[in-house]
Amino acid sequence: MGRYPQRPAGDAPDSPWQTQSAREVYSNRWLTVTEFQVTRPDGTPGIYGVPDPGDNVTIAAIDEQRRVLLISDFSYTIQRWITALPGGAIEPGEDPLVAAKRELEEEGGVTANHWELLGSFWLSPGISPQTSFCFLARDLTMVPPHPESTEIITREWTPLTDALDHTRDGTIRHATAVMSLRLAIEHL
Amino acid sequence: MGRYPQRPAGDAPDSPWQTQSAREVYSNRWLTVTEFQVTRPDGTPGIYGVPDPGDNVTIAAIDEQRRVLLISDFSYTIQRWITALPGGAIEPGEDPLVAAKRELEEEGGVTANHWELLGSFWLSPGISPQTSFCFLARDLTMVPPHPESTEIITREWTPLTDALDHTRDGTIRHATAVMSLRLAIEHL
Repeated sequence: MGRYPQRPAGDAPDSPWQTQSAREVYSNRWLTVTEFQVTRPDGTPGIYGVPDPGDNVTIAAIDEQRRVLLISDFSYTIQRWITALPGGAIEPGEDPLVAAKRELEEEGGVTANHWELLGSFWLSPGISPQTSFCFLARDLTMVPPHPESTEIITREWTPLTDALDHTRDGTIRHATAVMSLRLAIEHL
Repeated sequence: MGRYPQRPAGDAPDSPWQTQSAREVYSNRWLTVTEFQVTRPDGTPGIYGVPDPGDNVTIAAIDEQRRVLLISDFSYTIQRWITALPGGAIEPGEDPLVAAKRELEEEGGVTANHWELLGSFWLSPGISPQTSFCFLARDLTMVPPHPESTEIITREWTPLTDALDHTRDGTIRHATAVMSLRLAIEHL
């Protein structure tokens, strides 16, 4: 059984798809894949395989000097070191803001007194229901970070204007970082 | 066997993860899930389940009046109608620009004489290697669209400034649309 409730949980009233049945075809601690038997919008039978890692949070933590905390971590799936913002998975049933505070402290070594939700975004909604909740964190305090054992993380405080340039020049290519940085500057 | 070559294809020289073996645990026409046996950065054994739907393209098609083509399609995974840009999967071995031209014509009913790559972005690199190649298309010609049988699509030409407002107000929450619209305006 997956850790999170199955998604989609049922057919919306205005759905042109009809779900006939669902079968979990793979599950581990971080990911569940469900294969749905469906009737497609054109009336033909088919399947829809939905990988669901749950939702996640992303945090643009910006200090008094308008510097943003960037992290660099090795992505196993991409097989390279990538620059992004602090963030991580929302636990089953967890409030996104609670997850954001935890991830910023654990991964970033920062706590914040001021939080704003910049928006929530669908990362690849043709494939997965995964949604990312993007936050702006301000009024910051440094604390000791304590990342997970799989994370080797370097942290850097970068002027927000430089980070925004990096979303244009290919240095920052992580979707939630690109969106959060561009939204954050409009909230300062 | 999945349609696309397995990813990750091997360990990068600077990877702190070591891959011991790989096993395909699920595959359909649109998605392959591979479970890798790994040695994690802290030296402990573990698994990494990687769903890979292949890469995709997104197109910001902008006409002479600075209007952008928005589409609305029902997302099965999210169970709602969502507003986005034309786009779709890159076929195995296909050049991203070729895929973009095909998707813009099939889904959007538009061909273009001028193309620019705005960037390529990792949608959820902690989970999947899926990369989205985002294009700007200009000098447009209308042609008859011919969407896939699973697609019920409505099309609307919207002033780019309004579309950008929609990336802020929650109307446009599709990650590749948010990124492409914000990058496109800087290329006009």
